[in-house]
Amino acid sequence: MALKDILAERPAVRTGIAATVASLKEAFGERVVTGEDVRRAHAHTTTYLPNQAPDAVVFATTEAEVQKVVRICAANATPIIPFGTGSSLEGHVNAPQGGVSLDLSRMDRVLAVHAEDLDCVIEPGVTREGLNAHLRDTGLFFPIDPGANASLGGMAATRASGTNAVRYGTMRDNVVSLNAVMADGRIIRTARRAKKTSAGYDMTRLLVGSEGTLGVITQLTLKLYGIPEDVLAGVCPFPTVRDAVNTVIQTVQTGIPVARIELLDAQSMEAAIAYAKLDLKPQPSLFVEFHGSPASVAEQAETFSMIAADHGGGALEASNRPEERSRLWKARHDMYWASMLLRPGSRAIATDVCVPVSRLADCIGDTQADIEASGLIGPIIGHVGDGNFHVTLLLDMEDGREIDAAEAFMARLAARAVEMDGTCTGEHGIGQGKRGYLRAELGETVDFMKMIKAALDPKDIMNPGKIFML
Amino acid sequence: MALKDILAERPAVRTGIAATVASLKEAFGERVVTGEDVRRAHAHTTTYLPNQAPDAVVFATTEAEVQKVVRICAANATPIIPFGTGSSLEGHVNAPQGGVSLDLSRMDRVLAVHAEDLDCVIEPGVTREGLNAHLRDTGLFFPIDPGANASLGGMAATRASGTNAVRYGTMRDNVVSLNAVMADGRIIRTARRAKKTSAGYDMTRLLVGSEGTLGVITQLTLKLYGIPEDVLAGVCPFPTVRDAVNTVIQTVQTGIPVARIELLDAQSMEAAIAYAKLDLKPQPSLFVEFHGSPASVAEQAETFSMIAADHGGGALEASNRPEERSRLWKARHDMYWASMLLRPGSRAIATDVCVPVSRLADCIGDTQADIEASGLIGPIIGHVGDGNFHVTLLLDMEDGREIDAAEAFMARLAARAVEMDGTCTGEHGIGQGKRGYLRAELGETVDFMKMIKAALDPKDIMNPGKIFML
Repeated sequence: MALKDILAERPAVRTGIAATVASLKEAFGERVVTGEDVRRAHAHTTTYLPNQAPDAVVFATTEAEVQKVVRICAANATPIIPFGTGSSLEGHVNAPQGGVSLDLSRMDRVLAVHAEDLDCVIEPGVTREGLNAHLRDTGLFFPIDPGANASLGGMAATRASGTNAVRYGTMRDNVVSLNAVMADGRIIRTARRAKKTSAGYDMTRLLVGSEGTLGVITQLTLKLYGIPEDVLAGVCPFPTVRDAVNTVIQTVQTGIPVARIELLDAQSMEAAIAYAKLDLKPQPSLFVEFHGSPASVAEQAETFSMIAADHGGGALEASNRPEERSRLWKARHDMYWASMLLRPGSRAIATDVCVPVSRLADCIGDTQADIEASGLIGPIIGHVGDGNFHVTLLLDMEDGREIDAAEAFMARLAARAVEMDGTCTGEHGIGQGKRGYLRAELGETVDFMKMIKAALDPKDIMNPGKIFML
Repeated sequence: MALKDILAERPAVRTGIAATVASLKEAFGERVVTGEDVRRAHAHTTTYLPNQAPDAVVFATTEAEVQKVVRICAANATPIIPFGTGSSLEGHVNAPQGGVSLDLSRMDRVLAVHAEDLDCVIEPGVTREGLNAHLRDTGLFFPIDPGANASLGGMAATRASGTNAVRYGTMRDNVVSLNAVMADGRIIRTARRAKKTSAGYDMTRLLVGSEGTLGVITQLTLKLYGIPEDVLAGVCPFPTVRDAVNTVIQTVQTGIPVARIELLDAQSMEAAIAYAKLDLKPQPSLFVEFHGSPASVAEQAETFSMIAADHGGGALEASNRPEERSRLWKARHDMYWASMLLRPGSRAIATDVCVPVSRLADCIGDTQADIEASGLIGPIIGHVGDGNFHVTLLLDMEDGREIDAAEAFMARLAARAVEMDGTCTGEHGIGQGKRGYLRAELGETVDFMKMIKAALDPKDIMNPGKIFML
């Protein structure tokens, strides 16, 4: 969605906001903040999308307080924008119609760890790093890793995933149950703690990925996994992106339970090598990781190496030493910073799409050609086991024509992915930035989403203007 | 829900049914059947729930025909009950308010197999055995196996699972996308073919498990898996159910990717031994299966055996010979017939619940005591890796007091599972039979389900009276 369209958006008439802020101050005192710095820090800051600040920020510490905030806002038809860490990429935390940012970061308690059931119950402000730190002595971990140290409530709300999704799934697969405060102030628990159920509509999955537009998530029951006995990570270079992708296809088909399989194109490798001082060649490469027993990990790596060799891949440089593994994945996770070396002084803007893996090489190839023809710089990295890849555009934010070119490129990228039976967003969500692409992807399905939204939130107070305009 | 309550249910006034049947006959000719035998065969036949026949059965062969049926029914507010093979267990295919059974069994084409993407596109009448027969030469398979040779449309509609779910997930996890004809006659496709997406509400998961109450599924894109290189299956006896369950807990915690792990209690073993002429002891036993490379399978079996021995388990009698494996799983799948040997002339009625696995031994123990105290015969089998188990009650259908006792027992079983933070149904669905338990499990969440149903199907024509009464 073009910047100018977002800025030109006509807000609904929200006359009750002043009354809401007054009531919130009465109820929450100093935990209601209206200073500009705090308000701006609670709106979008991570891309070129505009920063649309809320009228106030309220810091909640319990589910009952969230319910109180929602009831006060509902009484005045005031928008509520849930906020975790603000690391989302498509404008999810903006307040285009004004309203109240509901900061959940102080709801950061791990309420229970059920080791026998491989699950835990947490508040939504717990971050993924915070959860894994808490789990340190249990032998368990939570695998989903979108890069940023996001809050798990936010990750659920945007259906986040990341490097481990090829083996462990996305937030869709790893939320057992959740509590949410709905638009009318009622608190629901969407499921009990059984690992599977066929009791009625899957309200858990409806809330996961709803981007705060149906309710505020106040508690999550998440799946946990045993820390693998052995972990082997490595890098394998390829002559071309297509060779690397064909290796991925065959690896997955062969049933190797690869834990991570990440593509860096030549330009990304160039940046990573320079930034992380890696002794590697700037060729398209796969970063891989295998989990299991020592014997299983060795067998997985061997089979992978044979497949890679069949597709012109070089030797797999691999290690199971934690410090080597950390160095490798730090280099991958630092790609945002590394990319900026390709154009000092620029701003890095990440966008993502996801296609069937059979179309991935085509989609990346066409996209690389498009980047070049557009005069842009955009290294590509991908969670290729899932067919998901990111373009990190390096932009001069002062150059309006370049922003226009970037927007036009992103629209073509989304259309290209959809044309290949893929999605305009594999893991970033729709928010404001991709609202314009949703109907091209899903057609009249969007109308049924809106019917659900209108039924559950008739005053459109739950994060309005995200995913779609009601 | 008690039999008498279902029979006493006051149907909504559905005055347009005769007009609907006349219009359908005009449109579909001889593919509209109103003979009693066919109508009765299209209503519930698998348990003691009453057979509530529709007014007519129409056999559709294309999505466009389904749309036509829905439009004709919608014009007269006539109920539409989708029908696959009729193997559901909770009255899903009954027509308590009359209406039209929409038989989809002739929509049985496999439309595409995308081997590189590990998915296929099928019509809803394809059965799981039909799909796997079609896939025979591809090296791929579809793992979900609820026992019956159900249609995949029905399996999606009821969120079915079965013995393989511990490794491969349920229908929730294995439907990539689906087409549905909604109550207003519009056709939607809920997602594209990308393996993951964060584009808007998860309409796929909303339709999966909705039991035909939101729309008629007309196409499915399903995940496929490579047939494992090696498969090892075996049986391991235990002194007690608790020892077996503790073995399951530790097996899953250890990260052994067990493909099946099924519990048979002593009574079930007694029946299985007699029916399938197995050379085993009538002790609580785990039937297990491991998938992977020969080395991985051997390692999994070895680790499992060590865990089992720690809990008093006997030797794992295992084989990777297809005929031996088939014999073993046939014995497991034939439990329905085998159970009847425990009481010749009786009718076998299966019910299921699912609890966190840490509570499974308690739940089964309490349930066994309850069965005995109730004077019932009910062997127990379970997909115990998921905490899911079945009680097969062997009833004299002529004895009203026994039916009453069985109903009271099933209500206590559902309440017991919910009290242990589980669900009243792990994989059979709610239908009519478990409607009375849903609110105890999910509280006001049910109200939000109803709001969605009312928004998407305001005339309540889509399989009315299932999951809840609107």
